[in-house]
Amino acid sequence: MSTGSNFGKLFTISTWGESHGEAVGVVIDGCPAGVELTEEDIQIELNKRKPGKSIFSTPRKESDKANILSGVFEGKTTGTPISIVVYNNNQKSKDYSEISRFYRPGHADMTYDMKYGFRDYRGGGRSSGRETIGRVAGGAIAKKILSTLNIKVTTYTKSIGNISTSIDFDENEIWKNDLCIPNKSCVEKTENYLLDLIKDGNSCGGIIECRVDNLPSGLGEPVFDRLDAELSKAVMSIGSIKGFEIGNGFSASKLTGIENNDFYRYENDVIKKESNNAGGILGGISDGSRIVLRAAVKPTPSIKTTQRTVNKSGENIDINIKGRHDPIIVPRAVIVVESMVAITLVDMLFRNVNSRIDNIKKIYSKPQ
Amino acid sequence: MSTGSNFGKLFTISTWGESHGEAVGVVIDGCPAGVELTEEDIQIELNKRKPGKSIFSTPRKESDKANILSGVFEGKTTGTPISIVVYNNNQKSKDYSEISRFYRPGHADMTYDMKYGFRDYRGGGRSSGRETIGRVAGGAIAKKILSTLNIKVTTYTKSIGNISTSIDFDENEIWKNDLCIPNKSCVEKTENYLLDLIKDGNSCGGIIECRVDNLPSGLGEPVFDRLDAELSKAVMSIGSIKGFEIGNGFSASKLTGIENNDFYRYENDVIKKESNNAGGILGGISDGSRIVLRAAVKPTPSIKTTQRTVNKSGENIDINIKGRHDPIIVPRAVIVVESMVAITLVDMLFRNVNSRIDNIKKIYSKPQ
Amino acid sequence: MSTGSNFGKLFTISTWGESHGEAVGVVIDGCPAGVELTEEDIQIELNKRKPGKSIFSTPRKESDKANILSGVFEGKTTGTPISIVVYNNNQKSKDYSEISRFYRPGHADMTYDMKYGFRDYRGGGRSSGRETIGRVAGGAIAKKILSTLNIKVTTYTKSIGNISTSIDFDENEIWKNDLCIPNKSCVEKTENYLLDLIKDGNSCGGIIECRVDNLPSGLGEPVFDRLDAELSKAVMSIGSIKGFEIGNGFSASKLTGIENNDFYRYENDVIKKESNNAGGILGGISDGSRIVLRAAVKPTPSIKTTQRTVNKSGENIDINIKGRHDPIIVPRAVIVVESMVAITLVDMLFRNVNSRIDNIKKIYSKPQ
Amino acid sequence: MSTGSNFGKLFTISTWGESHGEAVGVVIDGCPAGVELTEEDIQIELNKRKPGKSIFSTPRKESDKANILSGVFEGKTTGTPISIVVYNNNQKSKDYSEISRFYRPGHADMTYDMKYGFRDYRGGGRSSGRETIGRVAGGAIAKKILSTLNIKVTTYTKSIGNISTSIDFDENEIWKNDLCIPNKSCVEKTENYLLDLIKDGNSCGGIIECRVDNLPSGLGEPVFDRLDAELSKAVMSIGSIKGFEIGNGFSASKLTGIENNDFYRYENDVIKKESNNAGGILGGISDGSRIVLRAAVKPTPSIKTTQRTVNKSGENIDINIKGRHDPIIVPRAVIVVESMVAITLVDMLFRNVNSRIDNIKKIYSKPQ
Repeated sequence: MSTGSNFGKLFTISTWGESHGEAVGVVIDGCPAGVELTEEDIQIELNKRKPGKSIFSTPRKESDKANILSGVFEGKTTGTPISIVVYNNNQKSKDYSEISRFYRPGHADMTYDMKYGFRDYRGGGRSSGRETIGRVAGGAIAKKILSTLNIKVTTYTKSIGNISTSIDFDENEIWKNDLCIPNKSCVEKTENYLLDLIKDGNSCGGIIECRVDNLPSGLGEPVFDRLDAELSKAVMSIGSIKGFEIGNGFSASKLTGIENNDFYRYENDVIKKESNNAGGILGGISDGSRIVLRAAVKPTPSIKTTQRTVNKSGENIDINIKGRHDPIIVPRAVIVVESMVAITLVDMLFRNVNSRIDNIKKIYSKPQ
Repeated sequence: MSTGSNFGKLFTISTWGESHGEAVGVVIDGCPAGVELTEEDIQIELNKRKPGKSIFSTPRKESDKANILSGVFEGKTTGTPISIVVYNNNQKSKDYSEISRFYRPGHADMTYDMKYGFRDYRGGGRSSGRETIGRVAGGAIAKKILSTLNIKVTTYTKSIGNISTSIDFDENEIWKNDLCIPNKSCVEKTENYLLDLIKDGNSCGGIIECRVDNLPSGLGEPVFDRLDAELSKAVMSIGSIKGFEIGNGFSASKLTGIENNDFYRYENDVIKKESNNAGGILGGISDGSRIVLRAAVKPTPSIKTTQRTVNKSGENIDINIKGRHDPIIVPRAVIVVESMVAITLVDMLFRNVNSRIDNIKKIYSKPQ
Repeated sequence: MSTGSNFGKLFTISTWGESHGEAVGVVIDGCPAGVELTEEDIQIELNKRKPGKSIFSTPRKESDKANILSGVFEGKTTGTPISIVVYNNNQKSKDYSEISRFYRPGHADMTYDMKYGFRDYRGGGRSSGRETIGRVAGGAIAKKILSTLNIKVTTYTKSIGNISTSIDFDENEIWKNDLCIPNKSCVEKTENYLLDLIKDGNSCGGIIECRVDNLPSGLGEPVFDRLDAELSKAVMSIGSIKGFEIGNGFSASKLTGIENNDFYRYENDVIKKESNNAGGILGGISDGSRIVLRAAVKPTPSIKTTQRTVNKSGENIDINIKGRHDPIIVPRAVIVVESMVAITLVDMLFRNVNSRIDNIKKIYSKPQ
Repeated sequence: MSTGSNFGKLFTISTWGESHGEAVGVVIDGCPAGVELTEEDIQIELNKRKPGKSIFSTPRKESDKANILSGVFEGKTTGTPISIVVYNNNQKSKDYSEISRFYRPGHADMTYDMKYGFRDYRGGGRSSGRETIGRVAGGAIAKKILSTLNIKVTTYTKSIGNISTSIDFDENEIWKNDLCIPNKSCVEKTENYLLDLIKDGNSCGGIIECRVDNLPSGLGEPVFDRLDAELSKAVMSIGSIKGFEIGNGFSASKLTGIENNDFYRYENDVIKKESNNAGGILGGISDGSRIVLRAAVKPTPSIKTTQRTVNKSGENIDINIKGRHDPIIVPRAVIVVESMVAITLVDMLFRNVNSRIDNIKKIYSKPQ
């Protein structure tokens, strides 16, 4: 569909809803029949992005309760579309009335007006971070599917501003702190850095890293729908993401071929690479090793500091933005990146099935 | 389509063909009726990517002659699919026979085997750079359409290895040197650097930058099909690209909100941004200012130096790759990046048309 | 998307929901910004398909209340997805428990089991007529768009069993009787025929006709996405439809070329056809005259009479189906056919916009 | 893609080319790797639609030689797009120069002008029957895939004008006569009927029937992409087809439920239907029994008799059409219908694969 509110070709999520409308939601289509699924499976993931968890995220309190309205019967998916709705119950639209008259720097206010002629200005409308609720719900289902194949996606904060936060990586720490930092000793320092920024009415950016383990080889289509191209679109489709790289990414541009090539060796009769500069993808197709990718996140544009902007009456003005906003986007975006990666992987798994006639024969050989 | 040999939703290119098959080609669908088009329009662009132009590209000589087989009548497009074929006439398949038995590091040899069970190993088959001929032919048509709206795409080599090549930018230099460097004084130094690498049987990476001027505001769909997400996929779908960024990209991750936000001011009653860290896109939608994006290109994996790899008989071996290869990918990829950007922009222009009911009324108001 | 719960390329509806789940709904994507829309607009159309209106439809009472959850702001569409939910509140699942163990003739019970391995058997689950609520809601929006272009869709019962019901056509009668018969004098006779069938525990089929007036010429894409092919799929995608024809349809197969060709004449400088055997479409493209199409509807398969079938324990059994069912499908399908036609027309209108470069220039010419 | 020159979601054909351009062709995408395929496989099918075989088809002589340009390596498909080109070598464009100035009744001349503003008038351009070459080539590959699963498609002339030609059905006769009549005794009578029409400069319509045997159950997606809806679009996308029906089709509209329902019985522990009014599809999903469908074909509009029409100078005129045309469309359309059905079935087979999580596990379980 050309308006781009859906993602994926065979496993598809379609999100809908505005920040201050009645509800936000998602329809997941292409989930096969027979996957065990409960509302609790969705809720666990939604809680990871829920606002109001700490001082580092917007104080807007939302229960973000997932309601599955279709596609599940007696605890299992039926193969039909899964509709999930989350009602908005803490909208404070009056906070936003002022926004209707000017354009916030770094936001979509002006471009929505340019595109549509007007906009639902309440809380950013469709451009609000609340849209990602549908992505995370879809990601929850994608991860259920991946887990049946033992595929694991791990995502975390790699850096915040100039602070590198993923040295001495400990996977178990990621969801124990509010900043998704995979290293306990790094948390306090980073929190203090952020508290200083908040004091100044400022914000900052950071980098999210994601790795995928145990992915089968063969995923990704040659030419346009390469696995890395699809992952890139998935991640770049998240608000505030300004860059994407796979494997050693931009570093590769400064290397020579000898330095960058990953050589092969047999290890117990299995082909292994001596290094993984490629990030697990060659020619757009997964090679069976770990996928590694990164996303650059810009600083929250909603800062309390005075900013220069324009209003719709043709005047240059100074503004101080009110409302409730995340002082840093990175930690809340971690689960969104993970969800989009998981959704992409399921889609590519399904698309790869028809790559060999032998697979088709396997499915339709009797007894079915 | 799920195998991903096509790109674009409303303006679509579908490429086909293998490096050493009879021909490579492209079908361009969704080109409106009434665009003036000749084979010469295509040929000019194809010549920009043609191999054998200098010592920095593969010595394989190909005329790369564009044949338009459909969709054009009396010098104008008819609104039906435009089929373009380029026959391969300088294949030396025997050069590649050896490749069938082992996997070249950094290439798609192994992953194609993993995906399909076997591969057309001659010159990389479908994973060859020759596939990009179709992209460049499609890009030629896209640029014809963009030019009717006065939109301009400019692409060049930003860096090669550690050498920054776009300081003192001069647009007119780009296509005057074999390396697409937009700065005459930079060319010799860079050539010498590359000649040294070639002597060592080595190669290197680099960065390509692209800017788009005079793009209307309003392009890009909110949520998944953001303009930056679509551009990202377009660029990442090119072989050897390992990273993508828009505006200040990865740098934004290290900035604070005050530093990164682009403030607005009226200038002769038109809204302008005081800076362009965003790269011309806000909330996934073009804001009317210049689009700026970059792609990280890895070093050519086909190097003459001895490499460690495996063969299909289960042995660890050392190889020295024969055949004809580009010692650096960057300059030949410049026109491919430009083509993919142009195709994406046309697609997004067409998709934006239906964003307002007023546009629909404008089209169907009588007299037509 | 490959599971086919969505319809349309540029104006798209995606339905979800099961007969006895919590709710059924639809997401309409691709509706341009600026269309005036209220819940009442949707409700008027939903009421036309609401069950329990007469003895000729299932006695299941449902309020079928439309809730618009997104995509509308201050009475106008915003260009973002419109999510509409209708909660199910009169499910009597216990009526259906028995169905889980055998297969009803003429229903999808067996084929859902074959496809998915199991099924949500309550009220037919996803195969229930309640799925069409989303289609009718989408059709309501499509008709709002068509009306801005003065395009009119009229649909009615052409025949029931062997009774021809559309002679002496009077458009104003269609929605005044429960059978959508466009001829007052025909209603009583037909009702008596149906009452006799109901007494026998039987049912019958019929034909629905649809005409479209004031459609612009040029709609429909040559080759595969012809206007007639798209209309055919739209109509055949409705449950219980067994045949589709355009213009004189199957009758054309018995005619000669001289009899069938529609000759042209100028009438006040406008080209007119002397007849309309083609049904308003030539070469898959609308010619500006009236579109005429028909759909053949099978008899309701759920009859009270004893039927032979099988159960899942491997036994041949006799059944008498309980539950609430329409004794004739035709009248309730009329609004569904009309909705699908309207949706298709909007989609084709939008797709036609990019057929000429002149249209593109018209949209992007300044001032925007 | 919105211009509709492609068909199928997972197994896709994209045709291109005009009647009197340099060539016509097709790109088949989504064919899995490992299918044995030669140019001869394509040629056998193309010969079935080749013009000039008898007095009942246009005397235009074309070799219609299939050239496979990509996607096949050492006799097997590689999983990449298969490009097939057929060069036009018997164009007589001067025959058509006159057509540029007036509109032939029953043709797409006027509607192409209305849509695009002008047209390639030579031989009908894109609306020519030569476009179906690509469909038949695609059908050849689809049938190769179906044959690996033992699925068989049989298509034939059911009636010509008022003559029923499929009584005493004998499959072996279909391709032995020029009219695709499955009954030897019927051929002469029908030929004489047609010869009389030709003498009068007239033409006639007919009905094509197609049956599919040994199709697995479970094909077809509920809701919009029902197997019957997809088949309907496939068949209605062929020029000159005015109606489509599945099973007993329009007859069902005159039956009662008792007459129309197909009852179930166990036969050797397998569920069988006592009749097949449904035509092998229930709820849009194949039930494992024979698929039966029919298409109504209009009479050839190009008749030699004088016809009334208009020219582009605003005059009413009488015309006598020159050029070479089929006096009856039915026999040449038989292989096109068969091809479109085969392509649809392969697409639906591939789409059904992801309907159960068990299938996914089967594919990705190791060893692969």
